[in-house]
Amino acid sequence: DSTLKVFSLNSNPELAREIAENIGTELGKCTVTSFSDGEIQINIDESIRGCDVYVVQSTCAPVNQHLMELLIMIDALKRASARTINIVMPYYGYARQDRKARAREPITAKLIANLLETAGASRVIMLDLHAPQIQGFFDMPIDHLVGVPILSDYFKSKNFEDVVIVSPDHGGVTRARKMADRLKAPIAIIDKRRPKPNVAEVMNIVGNIEGKTAIMIDDIIDTAGTITLAANALVENGAKNVYACCTHPVLSGPALERIDNSKIKELVVTNTIPLGEEKIIDKITQLSVAPLISEAIIRVHERQSVSILFD
Amino acid sequence: DSTLKVFSLNSNPELAREIAENIGTELGKCTVTSFSDGEIQINIDESIRGCDVYVVQSTCAPVNQHLMELLIMIDALKRASARTINIVMPYYGYARQDRKARAREPITAKLIANLLETAGASRVIMLDLHAPQIQGFFDMPIDHLVGVPILSDYFKSKNFEDVVIVSPDHGGVTRARKMADRLKAPIAIIDKRRPKPNVAEVMNIVGNIEGKTAIMIDDIIDTAGTITLAANALVENGAKNVYACCTHPVLSGPALERIDNSKIKELVVTNTIPLGEEKIIDKITQLSVAPLISEAIIRVHERQSVSILFD
Ligand SMILES: Nc1ncnc2c1ncn2[C@@H]1O[C@H](COP(=O)(O)O)[C@@H](O)[C@H]1O
Ligand SMILES: Nc1ncnc2c1ncn2[C@@H]1O[C@H](COP(=O)(O)O)[C@@H](O)[C@H]1O
Repeated sequence: DSTLKVFSLNSNPELAREIAENIGTELGKCTVTSFSDGEIQINIDESIRGCDVYVVQSTCAPVNQHLMELLIMIDALKRASARTINIVMPYYGYARQDRKARAREPITAKLIANLLETAGASRVIMLDLHAPQIQGFFDMPIDHLVGVPILSDYFKSKNFEDVVIVSPDHGGVTRARKMADRLKAPIAIIDKRRPKPNVAEVMNIVGNIEGKTAIMIDDIIDTAGTITLAANALVENGAKNVYACCTHPVLSGPALERIDNSKIKELVVTNTIPLGEEKIIDKITQLSVAPLISEAIIRVHERQSVSILFD
Repeated sequence: DSTLKVFSLNSNPELAREIAENIGTELGKCTVTSFSDGEIQINIDESIRGCDVYVVQSTCAPVNQHLMELLIMIDALKRASARTINIVMPYYGYARQDRKARAREPITAKLIANLLETAGASRVIMLDLHAPQIQGFFDMPIDHLVGVPILSDYFKSKNFEDVVIVSPDHGGVTRARKMADRLKAPIAIIDKRRPKPNVAEVMNIVGNIEGKTAIMIDDIIDTAGTITLAANALVENGAKNVYACCTHPVLSGPALERIDNSKIKELVVTNTIPLGEEKIIDKITQLSVAPLISEAIIRVHERQSVSILFD
């Protein structure tokens, strides 16, 4: 029965506003700006003493700026005597640097976990981590929500006949299986491999897609290289239509051009990362994770199980 | 007798090169770039197992980028089994956020200390901290070098007659005193105060500057507001010539324009922060701290006292 307060930083103010509205509260007052030299200046403009504070921040681009905003905000909240500091991180930046793939590489996803802990976070609420193992990088409670139900419900409402859910790579098969269960559909896998060194990769398709509506699902779409090549391979191999979806629309570099020029009919994403004006194109549909996150925040605050939201 | 290696990140490669040259070694091989979405990618391209590593990085603008480069590099070095990870931070960003001046402010200078410690730093070598108390924010050895001798020697070589060293504010009097000792000169203080609320500040001068060559000294010159107003006040009050110097040329926003239009004849700075092309103007002279830092690194590595370099 301590007071719940929701604060937004600069990465995703729209989503934060929606979350606060769903919860039935106003966003906490704070000013997050920069000094002339680019250093972040944070002022919390209302007392948060003894409160359970929820800070909404995605560490999307500019990732280092957004991460430092978050760390400095946690420091300020801690020194201002917040009771708990709960981080709502719809998109966890640096999640792909989660292991040493080569010698002398950093494991930045673990570093970030340590930094959040050091700054003073009490809990992190996250969505579709690139690898669920990242939960184990933290020594505090993590609530790991998933976007598959939101994406699945959207496609269910389309009432497509003869659907197949396609994983664009070997790593995403579990996710594709979950979506297929919800849509009562079979799965297929893009089995990308390089026959010989220095020979172009071939996109082999494992599973039956002939004449079907293919829906590809991934956690992150970044430069969109894999997904657009896969879409073209699906059409060449007889798929009737190709849709794609993901939780986190990073969409950097050539992504938009590739999507626009690809065989993908529609790309469905969530708002864990805001699209920004230049990324709002006809082919992209954005669904909100605000209802999911608001529900999670209310459940955490009322000490109810959140596991019901996990799939 | 373990191997000493010097690595540079992206903030100040020129200074790092100079330091390595002075020490008589090559810079360690590493690649610090960005992925398409802006996340930092670091590859250390030579073994550093069992080595004493010195990483040169100023956390000048873009401060959050440079800080994250440093933290990720420390993580990579730690996982690659460096014996010690010594941070050479000629400029310590966020040093001015070193206390709660208002309610619910962060103390970002302390946060940074904790982040460096968490990432795995063994020691930090710094230069002219905005407040020497920041040393106490760390629980590891700190070597705190000072720029006053370098700046003083430059002005000594000019053989000015009748010099007065001026502190541009109350906080800098100790620094001005140190420089005055080296130049065998008296000091004066700009005593800025606001007679009544909502009335412009007046620049009162405490000390005799009439007909003298005034040299103002500060640690940081950022937007250059104070220093240029002070220069004009000095001339109006009878100073013959006005020079200014500082260790850290942040020079953000309107700084260059203000300096160019001011009564300052010459501004002498060091290279703890690189000037960049647009900041190289006739009035500015840049001195190198590389000899000082190289000497400190060699002494640390050979387990000799560094205190000889403190003033
Ligand atoms: N921001 C990034 N953009 C592209 N690739 C990345 C990024 N961060 C890490 N990686 C690389 O992606 C690989 C991990 O991706 P995955 O195999 O899909 O888990 C690692 O080998 C990383 O070097
Ligand atoms: N990067 C910055 N640029 C300008 N002012 C700052 C910066 N960081 C902190 N400050 C403010 O500067 C004051 C400290 O400066 P000082 O009184 O010179 O130690 C504090 O009140 C801070 O709010």
